[in-house]
Amino acid sequence: MILFEFRLAYDRFLLDAGTKHMAFYESLREAILSGQLPYGTRLPSSRSLAAMYGVSRGVVTEAYDMLYSEGYVTARKGSGTFTAYRPPDSGPIRHAAAKSSPVKNVIAESSAASPNRDGFSFAGTAWARRLLATHETEGRTVGEERGQLFSAGLTDERLFPTAEWKSCMYAEVRQSGTAKLAKDNPTEGDFQLRSKIASELRRERGIVASPEHIVLTNGSMQAVGILCQLLVEPGISVVLENPCYRGFKRAVSAAGGAVVSASVDEQGIVPRHWDSSLLFVTPSRQFPTGAVLSHQRRTALLHWAAERGALIVEDDYDSEFRYGGRPVEPLKSLDRQERVVYIGTFSKTMFSGLRIGYAVLPPWLSEPFRRAKSLFEPSTAGLTEQGALSRFMGSGGYGRHLRRMRRHYGRRLAALQQGLRRLPGGMFSFVPANSGLHQYVAWKGEQDSYSAFLNACLSEGLGWSDGAGNWHDKPLESGGTFGFGHLTEDEISAGMQRIRAIAHKLGL
Amino acid sequence: MILFEFRLAYDRFLLDAGTKHMAFYESLREAILSGQLPYGTRLPSSRSLAAMYGVSRGVVTEAYDMLYSEGYVTARKGSGTFTAYRPPDSGPIRHAAAKSSPVKNVIAESSAASPNRDGFSFAGTAWARRLLATHETEGRTVGEERGQLFSAGLTDERLFPTAEWKSCMYAEVRQSGTAKLAKDNPTEGDFQLRSKIASELRRERGIVASPEHIVLTNGSMQAVGILCQLLVEPGISVVLENPCYRGFKRAVSAAGGAVVSASVDEQGIVPRHWDSSLLFVTPSRQFPTGAVLSHQRRTALLHWAAERGALIVEDDYDSEFRYGGRPVEPLKSLDRQERVVYIGTFSKTMFSGLRIGYAVLPPWLSEPFRRAKSLFEPSTAGLTEQGALSRFMGSGGYGRHLRRMRRHYGRRLAALQQGLRRLPGGMFSFVPANSGLHQYVAWKGEQDSYSAFLNACLSEGLGWSDGAGNWHDKPLESGGTFGFGHLTEDEISAGMQRIRAIAHKLGL
Repeated sequence: MILFEFRLAYDRFLLDAGTKHMAFYESLREAILSGQLPYGTRLPSSRSLAAMYGVSRGVVTEAYDMLYSEGYVTARKGSGTFTAYRPPDSGPIRHAAAKSSPVKNVIAESSAASPNRDGFSFAGTAWARRLLATHETEGRTVGEERGQLFSAGLTDERLFPTAEWKSCMYAEVRQSGTAKLAKDNPTEGDFQLRSKIASELRRERGIVASPEHIVLTNGSMQAVGILCQLLVEPGISVVLENPCYRGFKRAVSAAGGAVVSASVDEQGIVPRHWDSSLLFVTPSRQFPTGAVLSHQRRTALLHWAAERGALIVEDDYDSEFRYGGRPVEPLKSLDRQERVVYIGTFSKTMFSGLRIGYAVLPPWLSEPFRRAKSLFEPSTAGLTEQGALSRFMGSGGYGRHLRRMRRHYGRRLAALQQGLRRLPGGMFSFVPANSGLHQYVAWKGEQDSYSAFLNACLSEGLGWSDGAGNWHDKPLESGGTFGFGHLTEDEISAGMQRIRAIAHKLGL
Repeated sequence: MILFEFRLAYDRFLLDAGTKHMAFYESLREAILSGQLPYGTRLPSSRSLAAMYGVSRGVVTEAYDMLYSEGYVTARKGSGTFTAYRPPDSGPIRHAAAKSSPVKNVIAESSAASPNRDGFSFAGTAWARRLLATHETEGRTVGEERGQLFSAGLTDERLFPTAEWKSCMYAEVRQSGTAKLAKDNPTEGDFQLRSKIASELRRERGIVASPEHIVLTNGSMQAVGILCQLLVEPGISVVLENPCYRGFKRAVSAAGGAVVSASVDEQGIVPRHWDSSLLFVTPSRQFPTGAVLSHQRRTALLHWAAERGALIVEDDYDSEFRYGGRPVEPLKSLDRQERVVYIGTFSKTMFSGLRIGYAVLPPWLSEPFRRAKSLFEPSTAGLTEQGALSRFMGSGGYGRHLRRMRRHYGRRLAALQQGLRRLPGGMFSFVPANSGLHQYVAWKGEQDSYSAFLNACLSEGLGWSDGAGNWHDKPLESGGTFGFGHLTEDEISAGMQRIRAIAHKLGL
C-alpha cells in the first residue's frame, strides 16, 4: 500500500491537537500539503485506517469529512477517497533557506529608503521613525508598575458596583439580538451613550453640546492621537504644559510638532502669547501637579485662542472627583467661538479596562475627526461596553457610583495628606489637592537624596509614580504623584508609616 | 428674601430632568453659575423651599446635598446653606456674541495655515486634507445600503449560533472579576485569543506564526490604516489591484502614496516588476472579482518582493468560506523572508458588529506596529468580545459554526449562480466563484444599459453592490458584486426571478 511508505505524524499531532480526529486531520493535511501524499493518492478506507491505529471508525470519518469539506480530498463514489491537492511549483522562494530577520527595528534605525536585495527598502515614514525614537519605556514610569503601593492612576475595583455593572452587561448581551450583531455601527459610537454623556456634561460641567459633536474613542488617548494626526504638521508649534501628560508628548512628537513648553505654577499653566495654534491643557487639574487653573487664566487662554485663531484641547481626565472647594468651569463651557475640544474618559470613574473616552468637538472639527477615526475604525469597537455604560448611566447607577466614590476617595486623600504631613519636614512640599486620584509632591532637597529615597521605597514596594518623564527636558524639580484611590485609609496610613520609617532610616 | 428676586427655573428643568430633586439641583446650579445667586447668598432652608414648591423636604435636601458635594454651596453649622461659587471675570470671551461657525470644513478647503482674528489658523495636516478630499460617500457604494436585496458584505445572522455566542459572552462577563476590570490590557489584545488565532491559522491556512507576532485590531481596517501610517510617506509608490478594496485606496491616499495600478485578470493580479516597495493584494480571492491567484503568480509576487526588498500586505477577508476546489495557500505560509503581512478578520465568519480583525506581522515589523497602535489605543478595546471569541474558538463552537456556514453558503452561492445563468445571455459574464460571500459579475453591454438596469433593480430593492468605486480611475468594465450570504436559497431564487422580469421589461 503506497500510502504508508511515509509515517503519518499522528502521534505528534495527537499531543498537540488533543483529539484523535484532529490528529488524523492535521497529520494527513500536512502529508498532503508537503507533497508526501501526491495529488490523486488513494487514501485507505476509514475502516482500515481506524483498525491500523486502534481507533473507532467515526474518528477517521470525521477527519476525512473535514479534509473533504476543505478540498484536500475528493470522494469518488464507490472507489474511495483521493487526495486533491497539487502543491505549487517549487520556486526559489519555497526552497530558500529560512533567513533570520535581516533588519531588526529597521524602521527605527535607518532614515532613508534604500532598496537592496537582502534587506527591506522600508525606512518607515518620518512619523514612524519619530514614534519609535521615543524611549522604549515611554508610557511607563518609575513606580507605575503595579507592584508599587502608591502607583498613580489606579482606582479601587473593590468599591466598584460590579454586580450592578454586570447586570448592565448581561442586559446588553441579552438584547444584542442577531439583528444588532450583524449591524455596522457608526464610527462615532453608540448614540444613546453619546446622548447620556451630553446630558451629564450639561448637568455636571455646564457644557452644552449635542451628541452629534461627541465622538466616542477607545480611551482618551485615541482622541489625542487623532487630533495630532489631523492638526499637527511637522514643524508646527504645539504648546504643552511643563510638566505634562506623556501621552501628549508622544503624540505631538510622533507628528513632528515642535513643543513649546509652557510653565506651570500652583495656579496651573501660565498664559503667554505663544506663537502657536494649538494648546493641550489640563485646566481642571493640571497633570501631574493637580493645580487648578484660575478663572482669570481660563479667560486669558480663551483670549489668546481667539486672537491667534488657535485651538485648545482641554483634557479633563479625573475632575469628576472633587471633594470640596469651588467648582470650576471647563474651558469648553466658556467657549463661545468654537475653539475648544474637550476630552473626557471613563477610565477613572468606571474602570481602566473599559476603554471608553470621548471628545466634544467644535462643529467645524467634528466631521473631520469622525472621518479620521473612521479610517482606522469604520464601525465602532467595544459596542457591548458602550451599551452597558449607557444603561448604567440611564439607571442612575453611574451617578450613585460617582457620589459614593467621591466620599471614599475624599477620605482617602485626607488620609494620604495626613501621612505626607507626618513625613520629615524638609522632604516634600505639596499643595493639598482637593480633587482627583493622586497627590503631587515636590522634593525640597537634592536630586540625589530624592533618588535614594524613592529607590529605598520602591525596593520595599512602597513606591509612587515618579514625575521625571512628564517634563520636556530636565525636570525643574524632583517629585511625583502618590496614587491613593485604590487603597483603604488603613492601607494608606500603614504605607505612609512605613515610608516614614524609611525616611528615618535614611536620616532624612 | 433676596433669593427669590429671580425665578428659579424649576419648572423648565423638571420637564427636562424628570425628577424633582434634579430639577431643583439644576435650576439652583444654573442660577449660581450665571451669577443670579452671587457668592455668599444664603439659600432658604430646605423646609421652606420645599413648602414653597409643594414638595417633600427630602427632595430639596437631596438637591442641596448634590450642590454641596460639588462645592457650589457650603453649609455653615447652625446658620444655613450659602452659595460658594464666584463666576469668572466677565472678559470679552464670556460676553462675546455667539458666533456661527466661521469656517465650515476649513480643513478640507484651505491649504495653508493663515492665522487671522476671525478664523482658525488650521489648515489641517496634509494627511487630513487628503483624507477629507476623498469623496464624501467613499466607503459606501450604490447598492450597499441595507435596503437592497443583494447588497454585498452581509452574512446571515439568522444562522449564527446566537445562544452559544451569548453564553460565551455571559461567561466572559461573569468571570470579568473586579481585578480584570481594573487592569490595563495589552495593546496587542487578549493573549488567549491570539494563541487561538495562531493555532487556527496553522491548522487552516498553513501559516506558522507565534501569538507575539499577531496584533488584534478593531476590524481589519485598523491594520490597513496603521500600516499606511508606518510605511507610506507622501510620494511613495504603492501597488494596488485595479479594481480593489476601497479601504486600501482611502488609507493610501490619505498617506499621500502614489497608487500604482496593477491589472487583474481571471487569475487575479498580474505580477510585474513594479517600481515600488509595498503591495496590497487579495490573493485568496481577489476583491471584488473573486479571482484566485495561481501558485505561479504567488511565487512571482514573493520573488518580486525578495528582489525589491518590498513588503506585501495580504488581505484574506473571506476565504474561510470555500465550497470546493483546491485549497490555496496564503502568501504568508510561503513567506520565508519576512516579507508578508497577513490580515484577517472575524467580521464575515462571526458578525460585522464584533470588530475583531488581526495582523500577522513579520517579526521586524511587529513591535513598530504594536507601538503605532498603542499611540491610539494603549490598552486594547473590546476586551469582552475578545475573551468571548477565545472561549467560542476553544469550545469548538467557532469551527462547528464555520463548517455549518460553509454548507449553507455553498448552497446559496449555487442558487445565485443558477439565477444569474437564467438571466438573458448577453447581459453578464461571470466566472463562478467557489468561495466567499459574493459573486462578481461583469456587464457585457453598454455602460448606459447597465446603469438603466441597475437603477431599475435598485428602485425595486433588488440592487447589488456596484463596483465602480473599486476602480482607480474610470472603470474598465461595468459590473458589481452580488451578496448572497444573508439570503436563503428561496429568497435568492425569488429575487433573481424578479430581476429577470426587470431584464425582460427593459428588453435586455
